[in-house]
Amino acid sequence: MIDGAMLIGAELRQAEARFTAVDPAKGAPLTPTFSSAGPDAVADACELAAAAFPAYAATTPEDRAAFLEAIADEIVALGDQLIERAQQESGLPRARLEGERGRTVGQLKLFAQVVRQGDWLDATIDPALPDRQPLPRPDLRRMNVALGPVAVFGASNFPLAFSVAGGDTASALAAGCPVVVKGHPAHPGTGELVARAIRAAVDKAGLPAGVFSYLPGETNRLGEALVADRRIKAVGFTGSRGGGLALVKIAANRAEPIPVYAEMSSINPVVLMPHALETRGEALAPAYVQSLTMGAGQFCTNPGLVLAIAGEALDAFVAAAGRALTESAPATMLSPGIHASFEQGVEALARHSAVTTVARGKVGEGVNQAVGALFRADAASFLADRALGHEVFGSSSIVVACRDMDEVRQVIASLEGQLTATLHLDAEDEAEAKTLIPVLADRVGRILVNGWPTGVEVSHAMVHGGPFPATSDGRTTSVGTAAIYRFLRPVSLQNLPASLLPEALADANPWGVARRLDGKREASPR
Amino acid sequence: MIDGAMLIGAELRQAEARFTAVDPAKGAPLTPTFSSAGPDAVADACELAAAAFPAYAATTPEDRAAFLEAIADEIVALGDQLIERAQQESGLPRARLEGERGRTVGQLKLFAQVVRQGDWLDATIDPALPDRQPLPRPDLRRMNVALGPVAVFGASNFPLAFSVAGGDTASALAAGCPVVVKGHPAHPGTGELVARAIRAAVDKAGLPAGVFSYLPGETNRLGEALVADRRIKAVGFTGSRGGGLALVKIAANRAEPIPVYAEMSSINPVVLMPHALETRGEALAPAYVQSLTMGAGQFCTNPGLVLAIAGEALDAFVAAAGRALTESAPATMLSPGIHASFEQGVEALARHSAVTTVARGKVGEGVNQAVGALFRADAASFLADRALGHEVFGSSSIVVACRDMDEVRQVIASLEGQLTATLHLDAEDEAEAKTLIPVLADRVGRILVNGWPTGVEVSHAMVHGGPFPATSDGRTTSVGTAAIYRFLRPVSLQNLPASLLPEALADANPWGVARRLDGKREASPR
Repeated sequence: MIDGAMLIGAELRQAEARFTAVDPAKGAPLTPTFSSAGPDAVADACELAAAAFPAYAATTPEDRAAFLEAIADEIVALGDQLIERAQQESGLPRARLEGERGRTVGQLKLFAQVVRQGDWLDATIDPALPDRQPLPRPDLRRMNVALGPVAVFGASNFPLAFSVAGGDTASALAAGCPVVVKGHPAHPGTGELVARAIRAAVDKAGLPAGVFSYLPGETNRLGEALVADRRIKAVGFTGSRGGGLALVKIAANRAEPIPVYAEMSSINPVVLMPHALETRGEALAPAYVQSLTMGAGQFCTNPGLVLAIAGEALDAFVAAAGRALTESAPATMLSPGIHASFEQGVEALARHSAVTTVARGKVGEGVNQAVGALFRADAASFLADRALGHEVFGSSSIVVACRDMDEVRQVIASLEGQLTATLHLDAEDEAEAKTLIPVLADRVGRILVNGWPTGVEVSHAMVHGGPFPATSDGRTTSVGTAAIYRFLRPVSLQNLPASLLPEALADANPWGVARRLDGKREASPR
Repeated sequence: MIDGAMLIGAELRQAEARFTAVDPAKGAPLTPTFSSAGPDAVADACELAAAAFPAYAATTPEDRAAFLEAIADEIVALGDQLIERAQQESGLPRARLEGERGRTVGQLKLFAQVVRQGDWLDATIDPALPDRQPLPRPDLRRMNVALGPVAVFGASNFPLAFSVAGGDTASALAAGCPVVVKGHPAHPGTGELVARAIRAAVDKAGLPAGVFSYLPGETNRLGEALVADRRIKAVGFTGSRGGGLALVKIAANRAEPIPVYAEMSSINPVVLMPHALETRGEALAPAYVQSLTMGAGQFCTNPGLVLAIAGEALDAFVAAAGRALTESAPATMLSPGIHASFEQGVEALARHSAVTTVARGKVGEGVNQAVGALFRADAASFLADRALGHEVFGSSSIVVACRDMDEVRQVIASLEGQLTATLHLDAEDEAEAKTLIPVLADRVGRILVNGWPTGVEVSHAMVHGGPFPATSDGRTTSVGTAAIYRFLRPVSLQNLPASLLPEALADANPWGVARRLDGKREASPR
């Protein structure tokens, strides 16, 4: 069922250059070998995508929604082989991967609903005012249209939900954009299975083959060529800061610059407010360690920084967290490379003169095991060395002890843009917390109270984004239904005769979408 | 009333370096001399803007709307001195400037309405689902917040409506962003008058002084320093392609890249469809020449390119347009520099071996006069030389004769991104036009039928934007109420206790804004 092919539209093509995936739990190579896509494959996939764009962008909401649902069905139809292959390639446990498949399928179905509902069109009508003085107003109608072919980069840490048929692909397809996926080299078999599922859905829907292509590969050149291709009009990426910034640079230097939506790095500060720390700090420790070590800490929203006022209560929290971490089991990381980076980051913190190692998790027997790491430093040291605020991808976190809330604020002010910030608070902390909310809102995409940042709901109000460098574009989200707006742009139509108006803007409103009439928005129809 | 000062928040400061404005109709310098803002002024204005940001972003919709209306009132209160100074500095006629003042004031008042109405908040609530399986859903609420201090570059061609208190400033202030304006050196007196009006409104509203600063100057270094300043979070610009692209590059190379909304260049293709050309081509010529020569052709949406099938009907249209242009009066251009560029562009076309000069307008007596220019070429020549598709800012236009509609389509496909495209058509042309609409929609921000692109309505459905290089960000508009979204980003709030929720997301909805509940949008309240 997988043979290492590239999917260039409907064509299954093998490249001469090959690469191999590794089972991170065994440190051993997996079969088969995979095509390492080169420049010809990139050019062909982009050409097909550009050719497919007009027809795909012109599909009705119903057809497009049915296509998204068909992809979901084809993924489910892959059955256990998908879970098994993903387990082999990622080292993630079965239950997690089954949950992730559910999320992936649910996400596709949610975008099908979004497409049908039609709010994404932002259909806006300013009726003509022929008698207005001194000049008549023309009939003006505006709607969103698709940007064009989109390049999607699969992420390592969610081989299903942020990869070939993940949120970027689902939202781009929902917007009416063909997609060319650059598969992540850590899970090429998983990627190929999902790519074949999408291809089957394209085929059954009778859509032009170029609506979807899949390019496996392990070279930086592949991604660079894809972003540089003039037919690509936007990029979705989840990964490292280095990788994301490289793509941003390429996109900015094109003859026609294009938007890059790169979700890059975050240490997700957690503030333990004074009263909460005092009354239940110790009790918070187990949930913190659970959030920290879940999935070997390989979440964008992993709590990598805890801020609180120094004192006995914080000492008790740290001690309890240390005890919990000491009992935590090691977990296989996604790839040898990610494991090596984690070890390097943890060692650098352990060796840092201003940092104390509070605890490490249990050491395991196998290879590529994440052994949790908990560190402590004071705020002055943290403020003095920006390196202490860099993300260590994996289950590593640092507790920063502050003199007072002013110093907590100083540390927050020193932070780069983040995906999330969390406050643990009691009713007695709310007055102080109220003044922190706008400060945090200026620096993060999501603020949580009395929870933990891991776990990103796929819904309408979610923002999985944040100011640079958490992402390359803080005006957007990569999770939730608002992700569709990344791949749309508005077009205005002035005085078009009825026969030339698109359905979304026609007087009869055949698609039954909510519209804004003279500035007043109608309620959503469903 | 004007003395050449910079307005650094509440402070009136004179720079040692000075520059002088020119009356383009006389070619003579105007008094007084103006401050040429240097790096210290930039840093001070940005520091004040950053300091003012939290308080300004936290203003209620009512307070912010009242502030926008106060700016409008202060501008009106400037009375005739504003019109007279703008006339001297721009060479534009009084009626045009009075109309432009009305547009500027109306724009501010429209954004006041927008702010009060609250749709811009995009308030979205996904209620908690505590019993959901396998995991409960948290309470998630999302709203838009202001990006931060915005740099606005005044445009030469609209000394009021696209300048100090123009659309960029109005929409940024409406979004909750402090504004630092880099004034256009062609109309520094007009700029200073308007800046003082805004300053008076800031003062009366009791807002922090840093909400608005005004930096006159004539050096590129000024704009570069402003865009590079780390406290600036977005840029609004209307001007040349060279200027816009330089700012885009600076913004992309910052430690924290920021969005630049640059509206740059467009030749605004007009297609005369076969039946319309045949039956009424000649009759279209006077309106075309009127649109071409209005305001000395100094509009972003000036019709610089006409496409039609070669033949007797096109010859008749060209001849009639030539006759009308021959009768057209010369008009003073905005500045000696703009006039020199226009002359250069027209001469290059006149000398081009594949281009015929159809007609020139009347030659005037004064200096800096735009003498209209109409050219003709065939499609093959136009396709062979991209330079023929470059904007000549001013009343210059080229008619491109095509063999057939396929060649018309070929020319359209060869064009860069544009602000507008226009179709002149009869009922008999509609079938063919219907297939052109999506092609044009992929290339422009606004499509018009049976009109002329000059005249940009300030309303909800307007898109004054378009794919690169018409603008640097085709996902946005710089005119109309949707311009506010350029200066906003979303933030999500998870499980916040009631006391910490911002008004826009509180259960009681004290601002009475329309919200999206569980994906279903409410109707706008007003």
